[in-house]
Amino acid sequence: MDTPLTALMINCTLKPSPQDSSSDVLGGQILTALASHGVSPATIRAVDHSISPGVQKDMGAGDEWPALREQVLKADIIVFVTPTWLGQHSSVAQRVLERLDAELSETDADGKPTLFDKVAVAAVVGNEDGAHHITGILFQALSDVGFTVPAQASVYWNGEAMHGTDYKDLHEVPEKVAQSTTTAAANAVHLAALLRESGYTAP
Amino acid sequence: MDTPLTALMINCTLKPSPQDSSSDVLGGQILTALASHGVSPATIRAVDHSISPGVQKDMGAGDEWPALREQVLKADIIVFVTPTWLGQHSSVAQRVLERLDAELSETDADGKPTLFDKVAVAAVVGNEDGAHHITGILFQALSDVGFTVPAQASVYWNGEAMHGTDYKDLHEVPEKVAQSTTTAAANAVHLAALLRESGYTAP
Amino acid sequence: MDTPLTALMINCTLKPSPQDSSSDVLGGQILTALASHGVSPATIRAVDHSISPGVQKDMGAGDEWPALREQVLKADIIVFVTPTWLGQHSSVAQRVLERLDAELSETDADGKPTLFDKVAVAAVVGNEDGAHHITGILFQALSDVGFTVPAQASVYWNGEAMHGTDYKDLHEVPEKVAQSTTTAAANAVHLAALLRESGYTAP
Amino acid sequence: MDTPLTALMINCTLKPSPQDSSSDVLGGQILTALASHGVSPATIRAVDHSISPGVQKDMGAGDEWPALREQVLKADIIVFVTPTWLGQHSSVAQRVLERLDAELSETDADGKPTLFDKVAVAAVVGNEDGAHHITGILFQALSDVGFTVPAQASVYWNGEAMHGTDYKDLHEVPEKVAQSTTTAAANAVHLAALLRESGYTAP
Repeated sequence: MDTPLTALMINCTLKPSPQDSSSDVLGGQILTALASHGVSPATIRAVDHSISPGVQKDMGAGDEWPALREQVLKADIIVFVTPTWLGQHSSVAQRVLERLDAELSETDADGKPTLFDKVAVAAVVGNEDGAHHITGILFQALSDVGFTVPAQASVYWNGEAMHGTDYKDLHEVPEKVAQSTTTAAANAVHLAALLRESGYTAP
Repeated sequence: MDTPLTALMINCTLKPSPQDSSSDVLGGQILTALASHGVSPATIRAVDHSISPGVQKDMGAGDEWPALREQVLKADIIVFVTPTWLGQHSSVAQRVLERLDAELSETDADGKPTLFDKVAVAAVVGNEDGAHHITGILFQALSDVGFTVPAQASVYWNGEAMHGTDYKDLHEVPEKVAQSTTTAAANAVHLAALLRESGYTAP
Repeated sequence: MDTPLTALMINCTLKPSPQDSSSDVLGGQILTALASHGVSPATIRAVDHSISPGVQKDMGAGDEWPALREQVLKADIIVFVTPTWLGQHSSVAQRVLERLDAELSETDADGKPTLFDKVAVAAVVGNEDGAHHITGILFQALSDVGFTVPAQASVYWNGEAMHGTDYKDLHEVPEKVAQSTTTAAANAVHLAALLRESGYTAP
Repeated sequence: MDTPLTALMINCTLKPSPQDSSSDVLGGQILTALASHGVSPATIRAVDHSISPGVQKDMGAGDEWPALREQVLKADIIVFVTPTWLGQHSSVAQRVLERLDAELSETDADGKPTLFDKVAVAAVVGNEDGAHHITGILFQALSDVGFTVPAQASVYWNGEAMHGTDYKDLHEVPEKVAQSTTTAAANAVHLAALLRESGYTAP
């Protein structure tokens, strides 16, 4: 390939910059793993932007989604990272999904949906449980709007039930998290390269 | 009882006032059913307020949640209404749940959690499916922070798969929706009256 | 009350007797807490019985659900316990829910649904996460068929992500699990007593 | 390719043969769409087999999963079809997922997980809602054990809320269902062909 694959991490923490974020730590580890395969990384912290409520690609005055959307459209791989609150993906994550819903009716000049040939990886972190559930929600929503989901494409961490440990405060990367990061990154790169070379046809 | 029971509908539509909202229509029908039992109704449209991201009861400057929280604390019955986007509760609904999470560590002077003895009803509307799933999420989250869930305490409507009909555009209330509204309202009133007279003890 | 309240634990482990079961351990702790309030306990291990696939109250020859159903109908409180597999409630748990679905069309002589005035508690255990999600599924399904869900009516435990520890192998009850067991039991007893004395009216 | 791609539909209806099954109808339509791309189809109706509870690849005497597992291992594409009961995937579907969980620790001679390079399509049908939720559960579980999920890889149908219409009783295929069937089949074939030619590497 002439130009490197690109990956965009969408960090859906509730915490505005410059606060520390476990999602940022976990997502950053995935970007590092992707970079080891030559992928060029970028990051959005969604809560730092004013993303209007709605399901159109541009909700008008004051809506900062259109600029973020441009970054999504340029990426080969999306690393969608969310914290867990009440066992669910964050309100910020759901806001991003709602705005991606608009892509269901967007196509390129050939009639191909805008997000076809892009690959999605899910990352979920929490000091309460919810990762399997949230990963399912992300995979369903992201496949629906056009992303492809690699084998073993999720990375997650949660602590023991009802303890308060945060991922960002761990002293080292748990071995199982490191393993799943390695696998998810390798599989995402493999699939994104295949799809760049030979994409889906327009429906 | 000396004073009537009160119900607060929290409408979690993505649409700011004065736009029409299917959630408003369905929630309004439940409030009407509650009023027929003598319950005094009130309504919040959450998206009309600036609710800061976070999980504290007051997130500081610009946060309009504290005033909304006061309304929650005064109600006997909460009617939690959400639309369905990508099969999930709205980002606005999740934002409200995140703020209610703070009540896990709030108690009255006797050590009783702030939301004990309050009753929750769930209402879900969508032109795509998701109601059973979302109802489960709401019941889990609302029970967790202290609400009690009556028998058959949910009301929902969705149209046939992948059609675009909105609840607000139906010409009449579907019979099954009317039945479940009647039952949910009656059961919520019964339970709220029992709990007002004889509440839980502090843990 | 003349006769004590009764509680039935439905253990939905995949492991037939006499194998050890984490669900059995956690459910047993809840029954003990209920017994401390004078509640009379009983237990079903669903996988030990041949429960036919289907959604009728009696699926005919070889179906052992009808006898189990009689036990459900006699209980004031159901403690529904499930392990977590792939982040979901077990196939055995879903089988029990499917059979309870038949109660949607069953009523007593006065037209009151068979499960009204009964209270449900959820317990979820796993060496992988899923408890919030599964609790929501159980509360939705159980409220739908007629149970009432107390405040803070769930008890769960899961270990740190991707570790293999089982609840049954812990050396002591985690403090947070003990606290939530105490609260769930007290609230279930309070609510079941209220509903026995003053039940819902038939819809 | 020398040999055609193969697809295996796993029908997770609660109804034993020869009863009519909406899942069978919807899954059959997907197999037909796959066959139009030259894919060779096969079908399992899981409830017709005695699949023991457990999470090992062989649960011993009386377990019919090992023979079904052989069929899974030979297929390039899995079409996982489930009905919706209480808003959830069926107990039969969950039983199949539990048995597929064993593949997490199975590899070929090169250390590659047994299900890598296989593609999964989800199909959900119901006269009550649940499709988005269930699709998420299936995609999470199937990606976790090694399948790859194509863009827009789900097909579903549910009727209007609380009506009793079954998919098998519709007089014609709804246009939207036909469209999503066409897209899911084309994308699955494209991806399965890419992965057969250039598979993932062992982690």
